[in-house]
Amino acid sequence: MDRQSPRGDGVITVYGFSPSGNCHKVRLLLEQLGHRYEWVEVRSDDGSTRTPEYLARNPNGKVPLIELEDGRTLAESNAILHWLADTAPAGATEFLPADPWQRAQALAWMFFEQYSHEPYIAVARFICGWTPIDSPRRQDLPRLRERSHQALAVMERHLSTRPWFTGDVYGIADIALFAYTHVADQGGVSLEAYPAIRDWLARVVRTPGFVPMPEPDTAAAALIAQSRLPTS
Amino acid sequence: MDRQSPRGDGVITVYGFSPSGNCHKVRLLLEQLGHRYEWVEVRSDDGSTRTPEYLARNPNGKVPLIELEDGRTLAESNAILHWLADTAPAGATEFLPADPWQRAQALAWMFFEQYSHEPYIAVARFICGWTPIDSPRRQDLPRLRERSHQALAVMERHLSTRPWFTGDVYGIADIALFAYTHVADQGGVSLEAYPAIRDWLARVVRTPGFVPMPEPDTAAAALIAQSRLPTS
Repeated sequence: MDRQSPRGDGVITVYGFSPSGNCHKVRLLLEQLGHRYEWVEVRSDDGSTRTPEYLARNPNGKVPLIELEDGRTLAESNAILHWLADTAPAGATEFLPADPWQRAQALAWMFFEQYSHEPYIAVARFICGWTPIDSPRRQDLPRLRERSHQALAVMERHLSTRPWFTGDVYGIADIALFAYTHVADQGGVSLEAYPAIRDWLARVVRTPGFVPMPEPDTAAAALIAQSRLPTS
Repeated sequence: MDRQSPRGDGVITVYGFSPSGNCHKVRLLLEQLGHRYEWVEVRSDDGSTRTPEYLARNPNGKVPLIELEDGRTLAESNAILHWLADTAPAGATEFLPADPWQRAQALAWMFFEQYSHEPYIAVARFICGWTPIDSPRRQDLPRLRERSHQALAVMERHLSTRPWFTGDVYGIADIALFAYTHVADQGGVSLEAYPAIRDWLARVVRTPGFVPMPEPDTAAAALIAQSRLPTS
């Protein structure tokens, strides 16, 4: 391996909303790499990502964002995962395949996650837990759940013959897809029909250094419970 | 540079729908790399990406997809761009920055494109040109156009001080964002308010080996023209 570690040993600041899967991706990989970081909580449900101060850091107004000690910033959860894995010190566990074709497959799954998975599974969960119980956005839930199941079916098919998303080892594509899949039920998307996905989730939880995503707070948990009630 | 060229000189088969920006990204980079390829036209508006034969190639039922001579496949336009640039022969123009931080910034823009740009700008265009004039999906257009302008504002801000999306040279992030930005008006999204974007589009068109995206066919062009008429 010829990878450098251009980020050195400096502390990385993560701006993130703890119950967000996109944000948890970054925390999970930092923990598994054993890299020092500071977490700055920025809620994405109360306008905190839209303040002038935050928009100066990330003009797209989203979390997560990482900031290096010299002030440089990087947005987009999956680009952050790729950079952390790409620049991991020699000898660290290989979270990004060394083979270019396998690297490309990891990226393909990460683009799948952001285009065909997160906009349905994560958005359904966000609507259930972080919008008012009478929000008009709740009308979107049936369509979001239908598309969620389409994404899960693609994942189930892949995992039915392979333990991980790229190659023979756990890596950043698994981290990216784990984030919202393991809490799909909070958006009303059941994993009951997907045994290979459930086995894979259990394998991810057993990887060294795994840290669970924080539970939704009391208000969000109550909304999620209410969202599970049958509607007339 | 220590990059190998693991894909060798074999012909790459591209499954794509010509007027799709996601598909054109792949054609544009292959042309600019001077790599041999065969284009297999697969329409995404008539169910051709949902046939059992096509789903066997890409279980997610989307174009573009590339296939190597040994039958291996890679999905997701931006993962394909990354692989083609990552494995370009030594001496080829550098479409992917060598510096890991700049590579990560390129990926961040490509994830921005797939999450915050394409689902609005490309989808508005698709609805205008490739759905019936009375499609209920047209009710989404005002919201899609509003979000399109939010993405364009982020791009304009970046380009107001820099010529390209990553570093000092043209690369895959520019190719990814060019695809649908340059035809935004076909979805009813005007670029009039974005002079830096318009200058950048003109620079992309002047890059060596540039090939334009095919025009929409007669039926799509007529629907696009009708979509421009003021609605009551």
